[in-house]
Amino acid sequence: MSVPVYEWEPATRDVAARAGVDPAQVIRFDQNTAPFPPPWAAEEAALAAFGINEYPDADYLPLRTAVAAYAGVSPDQVVTGAGADELIDLCAKAFLPAGGTAVDLPPSYPMFRIATAGRGATLREVGRRMPGFRPDDAELVEAARQVDLVWMCVPNNPTGHRDPDDMIRAVVRAASGVVVIDGAYAEYAGDRWGKWITQHPNLVVLGTLSKAFGLAGIRVGYSISDPDLAAALHGRRPPGSISTVSAAVAARALHEQERAMANVAAVTAERTRVRSELERLGIRVHPSVANFLLVELGPQASRISHSLMWERGLVVRSFSKDGPLGDHLRFTIRSADENDRLLAALEEVTS
Amino acid sequence: MSVPVYEWEPATRDVAARAGVDPAQVIRFDQNTAPFPPPWAAEEAALAAFGINEYPDADYLPLRTAVAAYAGVSPDQVVTGAGADELIDLCAKAFLPAGGTAVDLPPSYPMFRIATAGRGATLREVGRRMPGFRPDDAELVEAARQVDLVWMCVPNNPTGHRDPDDMIRAVVRAASGVVVIDGAYAEYAGDRWGKWITQHPNLVVLGTLSKAFGLAGIRVGYSISDPDLAAALHGRRPPGSISTVSAAVAARALHEQERAMANVAAVTAERTRVRSELERLGIRVHPSVANFLLVELGPQASRISHSLMWERGLVVRSFSKDGPLGDHLRFTIRSADENDRLLAALEEVTS
Repeated sequence: MSVPVYEWEPATRDVAARAGVDPAQVIRFDQNTAPFPPPWAAEEAALAAFGINEYPDADYLPLRTAVAAYAGVSPDQVVTGAGADELIDLCAKAFLPAGGTAVDLPPSYPMFRIATAGRGATLREVGRRMPGFRPDDAELVEAARQVDLVWMCVPNNPTGHRDPDDMIRAVVRAASGVVVIDGAYAEYAGDRWGKWITQHPNLVVLGTLSKAFGLAGIRVGYSISDPDLAAALHGRRPPGSISTVSAAVAARALHEQERAMANVAAVTAERTRVRSELERLGIRVHPSVANFLLVELGPQASRISHSLMWERGLVVRSFSKDGPLGDHLRFTIRSADENDRLLAALEEVTS
Repeated sequence: MSVPVYEWEPATRDVAARAGVDPAQVIRFDQNTAPFPPPWAAEEAALAAFGINEYPDADYLPLRTAVAAYAGVSPDQVVTGAGADELIDLCAKAFLPAGGTAVDLPPSYPMFRIATAGRGATLREVGRRMPGFRPDDAELVEAARQVDLVWMCVPNNPTGHRDPDDMIRAVVRAASGVVVIDGAYAEYAGDRWGKWITQHPNLVVLGTLSKAFGLAGIRVGYSISDPDLAAALHGRRPPGSISTVSAAVAARALHEQERAMANVAAVTAERTRVRSELERLGIRVHPSVANFLLVELGPQASRISHSLMWERGLVVRSFSKDGPLGDHLRFTIRSADENDRLLAALEEVTS
């Protein structure tokens, strides 16, 4: 069956073996993760593992309550899942009938088209155009009027820019169906979507513990929305996709949001510094409000990516040669030491 | 949208509150979990939580290798997911087109019809009949010839019986599509499906860490199949639905299968004892090869279930009044002490 498939990032184990370095020396600049986990992660995981012979309660109420407090909504507006990816799948199942149509704004998160195809639905693409990666607003609003679901990533991955509020509001108001905003990088842009949810009963906003909260390994994501849409998503989800340990770790992290905010502040400062350093190397860098930078390296992009990854264990994100970003790479902003390793290596391979 | 929904079991927290007992005093006889987790679960969880800021490697190779060694297949025949429930969803996505047809043998695991409906596919039911819960073999084989997918649970949940090999083989041979066997309780029946997989390229067998391995809280399941079917499932799965911690804990448990086998032996011995005690109370018990017993209590079933759960914190599985098992309850076999509490309570509420 010919369906688009998520192209898995190479395993750290394989990168280490081929680059001839210890796996602990491999640095992932390709997954937009945070440089550090919360310091209590191991302790909390051990605590939560007692009673692991039992299932987690299917309603995940303590976790949903933590999300609700964090996002400024009520628990009946929250649905949790195994990463925001499960929420994308649930949105497709709940709101996109077979034979339906969804709008995507490429380049964006590949899971949108995968989830759409998985439903046997049609994808209508309203392309983003350089510079600025803004789509044609009139075309977008017109498309939103005609489809079952609009997928948007705000701030957008992999570009790093954020669509303006007026454009997003126009889409949500025009939409005949549901608008799903993947807010995986919301904390980096200072976005708080709780109020939007109150105003727009057709809006679902997704969040994750994988980015600002530094917990990609626990696989926890969530949605906030009007209670009716939340009920529709609950109706499609399996009783337990999140482990007991992950649910406990996620709830604690959400209750300590100041730690995530400190991570955001540190990464944002580093982003400014890394950007300057890249520009000093003569590399064109797109503006970004997220924890990554999209850079233009010309036809050398693929060679540079290979050299960084397979010779040095520095894994960066590259893009299909045929796509609009074939000449680009995407670098996650990590700790100062790690970023310096990337910058030094880039200076070598581009000189 | 009117789709069948998984009826969530009540949360332990809610049972405790209503029964007026401490949550630690609530005993789950409704989820077919094991009485104890592996003793190293907390330690392993803490170890695996280091580096939890990064994603798990998307190929989950160490976990798949552990499954492969346990099941007697190769890693390219293994797909892992967030519980066997995710594998059921992936099977529906990969093998059941919208407008297709699947066969179910009710009463069986409710997720089969939920996954089928979720695809916009038709469910053809070949009902199991008491006593013995055997379907009409000729009707079943004829149905298997005509559909995209056959769902079977072996041993069957919630009945506890196991369909004979000759019947299963006839279905797999006749099937025009894929046969999915949910082997969640395989260890209790002594089933080893590896050889079947080699002989039948249209067979997918699901397994889980939730039952014999005593790790329901980690949410890890897997499939074994021909590599081509495994590739089709991989193509539909998200890159990471299993947490880093869960993957590590599951791999260790699979490498220590003797511990699971000890749990199976203890539970099996307890099952014999509990069965005798129930019969001594005049309760009709269906034969079972799994870690639970289906018992017939007549029109009182619902009242007894309520009394056990909401007055004593002993949660048992009841069934829809309208269905064929409305007069039945299902009891998970747990530790001797826990089983004794259930037996004593049953004696009270039935006398």
